[in-house]
Amino acid sequence: MSADTWILTAQCPSRLGTVDVVTRFLKESGCYITEQQSFDDRLVDRFFIRTEFIPQDTDFDAEAFQASFAARAGEFEMVFELTSPGARIPVVIMVSKADHCLNDLLYRYRTGQLSIEIRAVVSNHPDLEGLATWHGLPYHHFPITPETKPEQEAQVARVIEETGAELVILARYMQVLSSDMCEKLSGRAINIHHSLLPGFKGAKPYHQAYEKGVKLVGATAHYINDDLDEGPIITQAVEAVSHADYPEDLVAKGRDIECLALAKAVALHVERRVFLHARRTVIFER
Amino acid sequence: MSADTWILTAQCPSRLGTVDVVTRFLKESGCYITEQQSFDDRLVDRFFIRTEFIPQDTDFDAEAFQASFAARAGEFEMVFELTSPGARIPVVIMVSKADHCLNDLLYRYRTGQLSIEIRAVVSNHPDLEGLATWHGLPYHHFPITPETKPEQEAQVARVIEETGAELVILARYMQVLSSDMCEKLSGRAINIHHSLLPGFKGAKPYHQAYEKGVKLVGATAHYINDDLDEGPIITQAVEAVSHADYPEDLVAKGRDIECLALAKAVALHVERRVFLHARRTVIFER
Amino acid sequence: MSADTWILTAQCPSRLGTVDVVTRFLKESGCYITEQQSFDDRLVDRFFIRTEFIPQDTDFDAEAFQASFAARAGEFEMVFELTSPGARIPVVIMVSKADHCLNDLLYRYRTGQLSIEIRAVVSNHPDLEGLATWHGLPYHHFPITPETKPEQEAQVARVIEETGAELVILARYMQVLSSDMCEKLSGRAINIHHSLLPGFKGAKPYHQAYEKGVKLVGATAHYINDDLDEGPIITQAVEAVSHADYPEDLVAKGRDIECLALAKAVALHVERRVFLHARRTVIFER
Amino acid sequence: MSADTWILTAQCPSRLGTVDVVTRFLKESGCYITEQQSFDDRLVDRFFIRTEFIPQDTDFDAEAFQASFAARAGEFEMVFELTSPGARIPVVIMVSKADHCLNDLLYRYRTGQLSIEIRAVVSNHPDLEGLATWHGLPYHHFPITPETKPEQEAQVARVIEETGAELVILARYMQVLSSDMCEKLSGRAINIHHSLLPGFKGAKPYHQAYEKGVKLVGATAHYINDDLDEGPIITQAVEAVSHADYPEDLVAKGRDIECLALAKAVALHVERRVFLHARRTVIFER
Repeated sequence: MSADTWILTAQCPSRLGTVDVVTRFLKESGCYITEQQSFDDRLVDRFFIRTEFIPQDTDFDAEAFQASFAARAGEFEMVFELTSPGARIPVVIMVSKADHCLNDLLYRYRTGQLSIEIRAVVSNHPDLEGLATWHGLPYHHFPITPETKPEQEAQVARVIEETGAELVILARYMQVLSSDMCEKLSGRAINIHHSLLPGFKGAKPYHQAYEKGVKLVGATAHYINDDLDEGPIITQAVEAVSHADYPEDLVAKGRDIECLALAKAVALHVERRVFLHARRTVIFER
Repeated sequence: MSADTWILTAQCPSRLGTVDVVTRFLKESGCYITEQQSFDDRLVDRFFIRTEFIPQDTDFDAEAFQASFAARAGEFEMVFELTSPGARIPVVIMVSKADHCLNDLLYRYRTGQLSIEIRAVVSNHPDLEGLATWHGLPYHHFPITPETKPEQEAQVARVIEETGAELVILARYMQVLSSDMCEKLSGRAINIHHSLLPGFKGAKPYHQAYEKGVKLVGATAHYINDDLDEGPIITQAVEAVSHADYPEDLVAKGRDIECLALAKAVALHVERRVFLHARRTVIFER
Repeated sequence: MSADTWILTAQCPSRLGTVDVVTRFLKESGCYITEQQSFDDRLVDRFFIRTEFIPQDTDFDAEAFQASFAARAGEFEMVFELTSPGARIPVVIMVSKADHCLNDLLYRYRTGQLSIEIRAVVSNHPDLEGLATWHGLPYHHFPITPETKPEQEAQVARVIEETGAELVILARYMQVLSSDMCEKLSGRAINIHHSLLPGFKGAKPYHQAYEKGVKLVGATAHYINDDLDEGPIITQAVEAVSHADYPEDLVAKGRDIECLALAKAVALHVERRVFLHARRTVIFER
Repeated sequence: MSADTWILTAQCPSRLGTVDVVTRFLKESGCYITEQQSFDDRLVDRFFIRTEFIPQDTDFDAEAFQASFAARAGEFEMVFELTSPGARIPVVIMVSKADHCLNDLLYRYRTGQLSIEIRAVVSNHPDLEGLATWHGLPYHHFPITPETKPEQEAQVARVIEETGAELVILARYMQVLSSDMCEKLSGRAINIHHSLLPGFKGAKPYHQAYEKGVKLVGATAHYINDDLDEGPIITQAVEAVSHADYPEDLVAKGRDIECLALAKAVALHVERRVFLHARRTVIFER
């Protein structure tokens, strides 16, 4: 993607002219389309489109563009979003004790591979403070007990709000969020679960996998919703295992695919390649 | 594997000397070991070993070998099997209407890729008779209804017995076998299920997968046992899918991995690479 | 893809309005776009687009559509193609002695998985006649020697011409085509090479791979051009191998990926997902 | 692997009794074998074996074990190595500017995933000092120019010698080592090359890959030898790419597989799963 590339994403009910309303406007606005993908889900009659474009006019006025397009989009009940070149989503990362996903995300962050701006790391344990600090990031340790859960979640919510985080990444945060919290973060919190959901939901999925004698273990990155481990799936990854892998070996083998699946899901999200509708995602990969 | 390679497989409770009892005997019998794998499952204290060897004496006497080895193996409560070069397992294949797995197996069979000897194809439908006949194989059409199920299974059992089949391959046979039949075929019947078990057990797994919006579909080849879709897993395979794949597309995309997973499981079984213990398999891949 | 879905594909030099000229016309023609992908290659300034659409008018007039669109496309130097629902490309398959790719293609053909119409099978050996015949296909045995190569190619060319084949599939045809023949078939002949091109070009790639001790073998489906094994790549597939795989084992292990890579390339081609420009392909996968 | 597991590895010319000489000795020494793999390469008549075992006697005397075994092994011209539980190989890592592989190795190192002890990081650039320092590791910056190459290599060699490094990891060290250095490090230096060797040898492999329009890019971890990019291969990994990936995208996409292939190769090496013979490796994976 060139440094001057904008992204326009939209979805709306299916109807004749859904593509045209987008592409004609871009043409009329002097915007050159470099990549475009659209999909119409015929089972739910819903249209999705993602367009990368480069304005030919160097004085491209994003606000005017949005205001003008809103009028046309309205006729199609179209929800849209315009993303400017180099936009970086403000992010809060939540962790517990396992550090592999955090380490991986921080590496990609500091080397500029992910267009995010990490505003804070939040944890129910103190363990990963050093890692966050080395990256110059604020680290909030909010311990949790069954009794203090509501308060702890309020603390977390406050950090999310005060930092202006638009995306929350649960990088092996081992606490079940309350329904209330799930709803608040609906569509903007990505969790990594260490199994191929919906298989092995709940606790200790690798131990469940060992019991069943599976030959593949997996990881699933998904948006959280109020149904635990049932949120819309973004990416899944697998790794071959054998009889010689004991549960602790599965845990170890799974780390790499957890990192990769989560990092890929975050990248897809920040590049506006993921569309959420009902309990499913539409994903326009490059 | 050279044309003169024998295979010795064995399992027994864990104990000092389990490898030595096998390898010392082979040495003393003038057998040259070309490949060997052993594994000791420390969670269940069970030992497994597979050895490929070439007798240096051209007059190798398999019966005498077995008789002599039985004495030593007995001390270790070792169950063993000796497989001669070029041995071909007698097989019965069971199908319904879908022909992709059958077609794949028959191709590998007629080109000598699988060391099996197909004695018959059995089906509850007449559809695949032409395919079997072209390959010169007897085709038994045994229709089934809820009422006639016991009789039908008796017919099937008779074919298995009369043909001397040591292995039964359920190549998309869409009927649930009775507990009785499952027990009778325990450890010698391989089924292909079109999901990553234990996910999406039961009927229409691809439709279940679509509902959940998964990004990977899978196939599982497993030994049948009396717990439906819960038999010991031999192989699993996956295929990436997207939002643009409707249920019928998942069905289509899954065919290739079903064929591959089943063919691989059969190959592993006939090459004596699969060891069954309790609800799990030990698999020594090349 | 629904049964009433048309496909419009096009490419042209990069210019403002390339998407709009397509989508506006479709809108004005009352065509509902169900899926669309476009890409603009900034290194060669070339634009590619593929659109699936359903005409809202049941009396959709394809000829009129093309005539009208041609005028607008002309302004953009746009080359386009309109494909009707259920269109089946006439195909000639070329083979030698190895039958795995042919067997695989014929299976997919007879079960309707590939929108092709096989008009003939051509070979320089008599071996695969039975397989073709069982599928009701004409089989032409044109032996070849260094001396008779020009004549043999003329015979092949005649079959291609007389059958009206628009696509030629070289399903392990082990002869090098002449430059003349390559040129004649440029962009409409797909070959399967049993390596990850450009690695291991030429003869006996699996033996070359064994010599190098690689841990992965591969297969490449590509359009032929006049530079042997250097034609534009459509698909590539890999398979893990180990030290225990001798050259003949690599040959055996490679068969499955050869079948899969070739079948996938053919499917991509017939679904008009492959765009050829210079020595590279643009592929819009589902 | 339990905490009290020893590893015995050996290789020798093929001969009757090669397995027995190992396993009988282990039995007589009261060593319980938990996992064993052997392979006999019939094309070069060479035997390889790897055994994990747990001494039943808590006073296991490794020196006495080796001395006794050496006598028997000598009769078979057998080269062997005994590795104690928890042994950690001293390592020097060499880098240039790219930090992804170093970052990945350091993460695995500090979390105990790799049984290595990093003694120093050496580079021809100053860039990665901070990363090494944060992990408490000495960082040696030895700049290099065509003129100073011999001296620079002498500096590197001195660090390797003084730290007692048994393994050198070239984690994207972008300098070609001299033949002399290659020879000195033969069999104990692992390099990561960013292509599927032997494809795209030399400089800028991703750019070469782009030119050829490949659909898969790869990475190869191999022992260095005096023939550049031709050393014995340990692991290879691949990643799918598309027409929309420009050369810089291939570079980015390749980073993950480079990290994974290198880390896996190092793990295989330190777990004594890799056997080197002539220009090929035998690898006993779990």
